Amino acid sequence: MYRGGMPRTKGDHEARRRDVSEAVWQVMAARGFAGLTLRAVAAELGATTGLLTHYFPTKRALVEYALDLLEQRTLSRPRRDSGKGLAALRDGLLDILPLTPEAADSNRIWVSSWDAALSDPDLSTGYAHKYAVSRDRLSEQVAAAQELGELPPGDPAEIAAGAQSFVLGLVVQALFAPAAFPPQRQVQLLDDYLATLTAPDRSGNRRSARS
Amino acid sequence: MYRGGMPRTKGDHEARRRDVSEAVWQVMAARGFAGLTLRAVAAELGATTGLLTHYFPTKRALVEYALDLLEQRTLSRPRRDSGKGLAALRDGLLDILPLTPEAADSNRIWVSSWDAALSDPDLSTGYAHKYAVSRDRLSEQVAAAQELGELPPGDPAEIAAGAQSFVLGLVVQALFAPAAFPPQRQVQLLDDYLATLTAPDRSGNRRSARS
Repeated sequence: MYRGGMPRTKGDHEARRRDVSEAVWQVMAARGFAGLTLRAVAAELGATTGLLTHYFPTKRALVEYALDLLEQRTLSRPRRDSGKGLAALRDGLLDILPLTPEAADSNRIWVSSWDAALSDPDLSTGYAHKYAVSRDRLSEQVAAAQELGELPPGDPAEIAAGAQSFVLGLVVQALFAPAAFPPQRQVQLLDDYLATLTAPDRSGNRRSARS
Repeated sequence: MYRGGMPRTKGDHEARRRDVSEAVWQVMAARGFAGLTLRAVAAELGATTGLLTHYFPTKRALVEYALDLLEQRTLSRPRRDSGKGLAALRDGLLDILPLTPEAADSNRIWVSSWDAALSDPDLSTGYAHKYAVSRDRLSEQVAAAQELGELPPGDPAEIAAGAQSFVLGLVVQALFAPAAFPPQRQVQLLDDYLATLTAPDRSGNRRSARS
């Protein structure tokens, strides 16, 4: 690959690539993966479909690019970091919620991607792995909170699975009803949830709700 | 429309309609809404695409039919009914979870439909309404459980929103990782969640997890 002596061209190329990424992102945020087409991206970019085929020779290439973009933007997003133990757990969960327009776009794209991911065995396995990694991280935070005496004893993996369930479902509800779930209510619901986890009798079956 | 005197033909017509519904359902369960095409339904049915256009003149007609089918099958599914108060709340939440292959198919189709629903303002409003109705029902069960002394005081609407978040997120995790979330673990996680709700100090901020 020839790279020497042509900084402007290389810069143009990278600027164009950023534009393409942004156009793909905007189309996904507005229409989801089901609406992600070369034509829609071209329209968003103000370019021809022909130019887009240079980047994405097939629909599958476009979808794979979009999934990578989602992954990269998620990994590189700013994260809260206000402490350890329960505070870190709370930060990790707040980082997932659609509390800003940017986070709402990102979540909307994630939820949209579930359809594609569930239909493709490889993608589905990849997503299962992603969520397992995420639960492991939450599990470590739960264990740290337990060591600090902030959470009562109990299997950290189960508590982490519960916490991830809670925030994923809250994401879905907030996306469908942003007016009913403004950021303040989302945070309050999460804090109420975390407050129930701190109850000392959480483990064991003494208070089991089984009927 | 001529209907008189041809019971066999009418019977054939209804049998064919059931076959079409089943084929649409199977395609959605396997490929989601993104994979729902006339061609795929025709292949599932062992029919020609031409025959399908008789039922669904447009892609949109097929999608609307599929959404109606999802709604009807969800409304008509068997439901648990083992009591009132907390037991009824638990039943209502168990009814949502993918604890059987049939419930897994149905949930997989619901999750798939979120992409289409979020992209369409009318559909999105309809879904928001559906989930609000579902929360209202849960809220009534929470209030009943509070009256029975099974749950501590607290805003039933907020507790219902939390419970709905929990099960929706558990659905998503279980769909991606059915081996990690077999029915028994799903039920255990739900029971653990309900057990935290029964802790007497749930309301108020004494145990707030705010950092």
